[in-house]
Amino acid sequence: MQDNIELNMPISEAMETQRAIRRLKPDPVEDALVLRLIELALKAPSGSNAQNWEFIIVKDRAVKKKIAILHRRVVRLAGRYGRRADVKIWNAVLWQADHFEEIPVIVVACLKGMRLPFPHILVASYFGSIFPSVQNFLLAARAANLGATLITFPLWNLFALRRALGLPRNITPCAVIPLGWPIGSYGPTTRKPVHDVVSFDRYGNRGD
Amino acid sequence: MQDNIELNMPISEAMETQRAIRRLKPDPVEDALVLRLIELALKAPSGSNAQNWEFIIVKDRAVKKKIAILHRRVVRLAGRYGRRADVKIWNAVLWQADHFEEIPVIVVACLKGMRLPFPHILVASYFGSIFPSVQNFLLAARAANLGATLITFPLWNLFALRRALGLPRNITPCAVIPLGWPIGSYGPTTRKPVHDVVSFDRYGNRGD
Repeated sequence: MQDNIELNMPISEAMETQRAIRRLKPDPVEDALVLRLIELALKAPSGSNAQNWEFIIVKDRAVKKKIAILHRRVVRLAGRYGRRADVKIWNAVLWQADHFEEIPVIVVACLKGMRLPFPHILVASYFGSIFPSVQNFLLAARAANLGATLITFPLWNLFALRRALGLPRNITPCAVIPLGWPIGSYGPTTRKPVHDVVSFDRYGNRGD
Repeated sequence: MQDNIELNMPISEAMETQRAIRRLKPDPVEDALVLRLIELALKAPSGSNAQNWEFIIVKDRAVKKKIAILHRRVVRLAGRYGRRADVKIWNAVLWQADHFEEIPVIVVACLKGMRLPFPHILVASYFGSIFPSVQNFLLAARAANLGATLITFPLWNLFALRRALGLPRNITPCAVIPLGWPIGSYGPTTRKPVHDVVSFDRYGNRGD
């Protein structure tokens, strides 16, 4: 039924105005809309087309609180010892950590199956089977005018995060996405010019 | 200047019709178009907004051949010992391996900076800083009616791949994308129903 929710924003507009929106209203987001975003997330490629995805939609305050505690611990550490982002971004990070339980929906994107620490080809295939899907989710959220961010801080303690979500050991959370109606607004982001990151045929050959 | 290339396909259409297109014509693809796709790739989020990307656009046949040799070795192994994909997909994989040098453009997406094998939070942040960008590239390619696939087989020998591309040790290739005008056509893909992969609040609570 959620097939009916059309997200008609032109793709270049969605990409060009996608940004991390951390300040979110407590107002609820309809399940049908969240499911539509996940449905589009599932259209992304996955290694050997295995589609080993699991998405947990967290709305229960008690579960959100457990994730919030994990998240805040790393935010505090990052604030004390980390390389700080610029002040504006950091203030938004702090705001989100403080208001985590009031955010209407936390989506946790997980992968089923063994995760080996090496070789590189297997690790790249593993994460390459979940982050394209996460990016579809974030772009679709943008097109729906929802606010979202990709965070990884709660992943520092996999044991506690799995326990909070009732996940068995063979399912690994890979990305956490707080989702809600934005307090701030979308708009263009600043990025490196393309010629700073592109080489032709061999690294360093920046073209003319 | 490549800002002018508009990609106006509605986002849900691009996602719903994205698929791996492996059979590609040898006809050239304009640099301006490839650069536009990379420009949109750069709009994706990256961990701490570090934007540590490097993209290598390979058109030189000698360099393509080096990547092809790495790729074919794994294709052959997968054919002999691996879990085979369905016959149609496997035939397309074999076609691409055989014609790798004729594909007009191979884009290699890389990350700058240290890649540690653990803990999970750092590995997820690392790959979470390149695959959203790769997915933007693939979606933008779809919107431009180009054919593309995400492959990882050439990553099995990082030493050889870095040497082929002149990459220093602190730059790691994470995804290889053969790109060109499609011989086949786009169209809807089959995916698991969303309710098979979604839980509410705790894993296994599939809703009603």
